[in-house]
Amino acid sequence: MYELLRGLRVVEGASFIAGPSCGLHLAQMGADVIRFDQIGGGPDFRRWPLAPNGTSLYWEGLNKGKKSIAIDLGRPEGRELAVALATAPGDDGGVFLTNFPVGGFLSHEALCAKRADLITLRVMGWSDGSPAVDYTVNAAAGIPMMTGPVEDPRPVNHVLPAWDLLAGAYGAFALVSGLLRRRETGEGAELRVSLSDIAATSLGHLGQVAEVSCSGDRPRMGNDLFGAFGRDFQCADGARIIVVAITGRQWTGLVKTLDLSEQIACVEAELGVSFAKDEGLRFLHRQRLFPLFEQAIGSRASTELGPAFDSNGVTWGPYQSLHEAVTADPRLFTGNPQFQTVAQPSGVDYPTAGPACRVEGVGRGSPGVAPRLGEHSEQVLADVLKLGSGEIGRLFDQGIVA
Amino acid sequence: MYELLRGLRVVEGASFIAGPSCGLHLAQMGADVIRFDQIGGGPDFRRWPLAPNGTSLYWEGLNKGKKSIAIDLGRPEGRELAVALATAPGDDGGVFLTNFPVGGFLSHEALCAKRADLITLRVMGWSDGSPAVDYTVNAAAGIPMMTGPVEDPRPVNHVLPAWDLLAGAYGAFALVSGLLRRRETGEGAELRVSLSDIAATSLGHLGQVAEVSCSGDRPRMGNDLFGAFGRDFQCADGARIIVVAITGRQWTGLVKTLDLSEQIACVEAELGVSFAKDEGLRFLHRQRLFPLFEQAIGSRASTELGPAFDSNGVTWGPYQSLHEAVTADPRLFTGNPQFQTVAQPSGVDYPTAGPACRVEGVGRGSPGVAPRLGEHSEQVLADVLKLGSGEIGRLFDQGIVA
Repeated sequence: MYELLRGLRVVEGASFIAGPSCGLHLAQMGADVIRFDQIGGGPDFRRWPLAPNGTSLYWEGLNKGKKSIAIDLGRPEGRELAVALATAPGDDGGVFLTNFPVGGFLSHEALCAKRADLITLRVMGWSDGSPAVDYTVNAAAGIPMMTGPVEDPRPVNHVLPAWDLLAGAYGAFALVSGLLRRRETGEGAELRVSLSDIAATSLGHLGQVAEVSCSGDRPRMGNDLFGAFGRDFQCADGARIIVVAITGRQWTGLVKTLDLSEQIACVEAELGVSFAKDEGLRFLHRQRLFPLFEQAIGSRASTELGPAFDSNGVTWGPYQSLHEAVTADPRLFTGNPQFQTVAQPSGVDYPTAGPACRVEGVGRGSPGVAPRLGEHSEQVLADVLKLGSGEIGRLFDQGIVA
Repeated sequence: MYELLRGLRVVEGASFIAGPSCGLHLAQMGADVIRFDQIGGGPDFRRWPLAPNGTSLYWEGLNKGKKSIAIDLGRPEGRELAVALATAPGDDGGVFLTNFPVGGFLSHEALCAKRADLITLRVMGWSDGSPAVDYTVNAAAGIPMMTGPVEDPRPVNHVLPAWDLLAGAYGAFALVSGLLRRRETGEGAELRVSLSDIAATSLGHLGQVAEVSCSGDRPRMGNDLFGAFGRDFQCADGARIIVVAITGRQWTGLVKTLDLSEQIACVEAELGVSFAKDEGLRFLHRQRLFPLFEQAIGSRASTELGPAFDSNGVTWGPYQSLHEAVTADPRLFTGNPQFQTVAQPSGVDYPTAGPACRVEGVGRGSPGVAPRLGEHSEQVLADVLKLGSGEIGRLFDQGIVA
């Protein structure tokens, strides 16, 4: 955890990935993030993967470093507590992160009646409020039809919930931008980030909406990189690697390492082109180029090729399983200072992820420990809502909190 | 464009997706983003897809709403200009976004000698500075080995540069967080966001690092959703749809719509489980469940099923191509107010993406037009560096700027 957001209090009433990952980013930058959940756990409390003791490793991973209060949201008094938390006074409070519906008891309008300068960051599925998860939006946005082997026409779902993760990170950006504005003007805002808008705008920003508008769908191309040189290749020892050359320098380094200059020059002479000067030509003529690289890479072991690639600045990588990466790749995990093994409620020992950002010259602190559900109920009621011990005792006795 | 970041000046010296998308998010929230490039264009200036007139739709999409200055970075005087821009005085300046190397002429240390409170957001490939692109990091992080048909062991590259996009959005969050801190303490910072840290920490946050630490690699499972019920199915009219049921409510709505209650109850009785109460059991026993859904979905047309699913709150979606989505899906594109068709340098008419965030109750403004390369060279030299017309003329005459 860093301290860039120290002193900021954020109340989170959210589940699954987009909202909670947004809260996680804020917490790992030093914000005091208070997550409220239904007593017994919200809809994401048992999401797989699970630890041997039954704890959700997913919930644990997404809620590190937050405080937890468990509330009976089915009763009016519980709902009033959630509203009171989201709208509690103080210059550094008044920030609410949620995926609750636009129009319910946690509507921005209802909350603003209690605190006019509230910033609400609302994460949604479809922007019209209808239900969606990452995978259904992804199917509608066309990605699975572009993914996978050329000869197999079936759609291929992504396994990384990319839109969820992107909504969480972009949501954190929007929230802090709203806060910056509030500090200047005193005005709150409701900021809505939906998975559907995230997917649609991303494909717009990448030029793909423009592309299909002028030339129709990009055909499926398997593992080939679009618009430049790149693909998976098999080495002599059977290892699969990916090699990419987008810039001229990446290309010349690659050709040099594989000792292919003469053969490439022959192809260039025949076609009347220069591959070093135009990455698009490398893509256009890739079927002429690939056999040369298959032969050159296929005749050498990955253990020999890797260091040679590295010393010539080639952009390449091995295909690894996640287990291989977690147990043996120092750049990603085993030697990555953003990870620390800390005791978590699951009892599983694993490298726990801190923030993705490195703040140079500043100590990292702990990546954070996930709370037990309701671990901070009493503390939050006392500190944020300033309730006395008698009142807190009554709320516990009546099962409004746990 | 919104105005949450109005008054903020950001200088961008970056290329490809992560850095420029970060700058784009800032620009679309109202920041004045000045991008400098090598005269003639940086390494991403001709990246595919291209418009019929040769313009890069990729560059156009990622640089909307920014100002452009073209500088000869190969000459000392050009480099000094880039340094002067990044470190120009003013309370709302002093923010530099880059993917230049850690140790070069745009090192944070060198820039801090000119402006001590500088915030540098540096986007990187591998966190150790070695070259990487999204696709090589993705291969190393294990995603392609988990993706694609079960019976085909080959790795499947993702076609969405998810890590790039995530680095851009998370980078924008980190940058604005740094700014908030600077406004309180006066201190600058160098913030480094690498594709490798983005990938590693994301897999950590999702619980997958913990999962492989205790139970090894998750086997490849094709289009099946991990840990709950979800997969692609084919309707009677041949249309493919994805159906997902993570929560109990999603499950009961799905079972009800497909009139499968009795058949599910038989399976539950036989296995001694309740699928409504535990999403993990739906995953564990999915091979028992899928045939029932294949039959029920396969006997009805998608045109009939879609409205029935919608009225019961089922989480589902069609598999569409991007062209279908762009031309006919009102929720993603044709009716999405975050998109507007504006005249761009490419001359292609397409819906241009504004910010992913909707700020409720506030006018959107234009999503922004991409600059011509060097379109704002003169203006930036005058406004930011306060150079006189004689000096500006000399810089143009000597080819230091264009």
